[in-house]
Amino acid sequence: MAGAVTSKGCQKIRGSQIKELLDAKRNVLFDCDGVIWNGETAVPGAPEVVSSLKQQGKNVFFVTNNCTRPRENYVQKFSRLGFNDVAQEEIFSSAYCSAVYLRDVAKVQGKVFVIGGSGVYNELRDAGVPFVEEETDTSGGSIYDCPLDSEVKAVLVGYDEKFNFLKLAKACCYLRNADCLFLATDPDPWHPLRGGRVTPGSGSLTAALETATDRKATVIGKPSRFMFECIASQFGVDPAQCLMVGDRLETDILFGTNCGLDTMLTLTGVSKMEEAEGYRDSEAPEKKDFVPDYVVDTIADFLQTEEED
Amino acid sequence: MAGAVTSKGCQKIRGSQIKELLDAKRNVLFDCDGVIWNGETAVPGAPEVVSSLKQQGKNVFFVTNNCTRPRENYVQKFSRLGFNDVAQEEIFSSAYCSAVYLRDVAKVQGKVFVIGGSGVYNELRDAGVPFVEEETDTSGGSIYDCPLDSEVKAVLVGYDEKFNFLKLAKACCYLRNADCLFLATDPDPWHPLRGGRVTPGSGSLTAALETATDRKATVIGKPSRFMFECIASQFGVDPAQCLMVGDRLETDILFGTNCGLDTMLTLTGVSKMEEAEGYRDSEAPEKKDFVPDYVVDTIADFLQTEEED
Repeated sequence: MAGAVTSKGCQKIRGSQIKELLDAKRNVLFDCDGVIWNGETAVPGAPEVVSSLKQQGKNVFFVTNNCTRPRENYVQKFSRLGFNDVAQEEIFSSAYCSAVYLRDVAKVQGKVFVIGGSGVYNELRDAGVPFVEEETDTSGGSIYDCPLDSEVKAVLVGYDEKFNFLKLAKACCYLRNADCLFLATDPDPWHPLRGGRVTPGSGSLTAALETATDRKATVIGKPSRFMFECIASQFGVDPAQCLMVGDRLETDILFGTNCGLDTMLTLTGVSKMEEAEGYRDSEAPEKKDFVPDYVVDTIADFLQTEEED
Repeated sequence: MAGAVTSKGCQKIRGSQIKELLDAKRNVLFDCDGVIWNGETAVPGAPEVVSSLKQQGKNVFFVTNNCTRPRENYVQKFSRLGFNDVAQEEIFSSAYCSAVYLRDVAKVQGKVFVIGGSGVYNELRDAGVPFVEEETDTSGGSIYDCPLDSEVKAVLVGYDEKFNFLKLAKACCYLRNADCLFLATDPDPWHPLRGGRVTPGSGSLTAALETATDRKATVIGKPSRFMFECIASQFGVDPAQCLMVGDRLETDILFGTNCGLDTMLTLTGVSKMEEAEGYRDSEAPEKKDFVPDYVVDTIADFLQTEEED
């Protein structure tokens, strides 16, 4: 698969090479942010790419670490941005998969204390997993005297713009009990915003809690395998038949590697070609897991295969 | 110095052994929480120990990672708890030493963005270091549209019960500039509260920021050497003439080791004798730095030396 390049991976492909690759796959997994859209703007051509793949009879899945929206909001966003044929069951968000994990794998017997937003709350509610609703601290209480809920048996950490000290401190107290599960929706350390700003990701909030508790969270999102296991169990897909397309080497590409999928970096998001080549040319064996098999400038290049043939 | 024990360190001493050790030292450095007091209760005998050491002509210093109070409040607390002869200049808190570092070592040219409380604010004000006063978010702004201050040239993270997402996110944005200094008052991951509760420490909040920025903070508090350098530069003390007394192996004892001081664990706080012996008997060489030279049940045992002689 390494083609004409000297080191394995980072093969920049286009036109008929992309067509050949896609012809060999039945399933295409896309990350969302930086791959099919950036914020509220679709990557040009992305809606046509998704439609085209589906018309060719392929399964298309969306695998996102973004836990801020419940899946029904994703369906609305897809529609708003011109994707007219995306169904809720094709969307695997870290919030949805966290709820599935708590219900079906951990089979949690008790409530979940959530650091997160409506995306996490709604998915837990839909999955029938009880949780402590604490959008923000309105009691004026402090960690010295606030009530703690003895029914809490798990702490789930996701992106939370209402994160505050009391939520962090309560989570620490719950996690003193070694039987209390410790989950994180995703490990993303930060996200880019407009104007060069950044916002801390779930991984940042999780790090605070890991340090304070000397425990490690079980991470549901990429690069953990669990989101692929969700897809595989619901759709029976074969890893050898899958292509994972993402914009972050340390999450998307590592996820693909961890799950045994062919991987493709698209350059419309966070990671750059030079970073991918840096991993490829590194002496450290563990860096190889970040190296994409293929690289495209944008997934819109998928459309060229039709025009050029 | 290892005495009759088989492995070096963890020598439990009392009576005349303590007297002999103290006779050989001119300077005694005490951690505060867990050593001379617990919360608002002095360790029984601690005020007499401090007075006795001073009457013997020794320098006594208080070296605390607790950044929540300015030093004048510490003087009041000492007095309230029965310590009648402690002066402000004998108190080296992580907040005070952070202000000294910013003013005298980093010579910061600009404002400091503070995650922390009044202890940090007051010490910066006393040191003449300009800072952004942001006790809490009252603007209703978000990281998407809040103002950022272009004069910020350093971020300082300490214990902050008003920590929230916006403070964290703003700090992330400031630290995108590689010229912006990144300091932490102390690395403490958590602190014990009453009733088995815990509260996240400065180290927990710093971890969130380190993860989000992929940078490492310069840590001022123990086990970093800087607080000893502050004492040494102001009082001209010789490490060989110092005994460091603390209750946490990973901060106090490591600090003493890092600074070349004799170290003593007192068992009135966080760390247990078994943990110290565990480090002593470990195969890993780096664990030896956590092993105290001496162990006492309480610093009140210092008084026995007089009674028994």
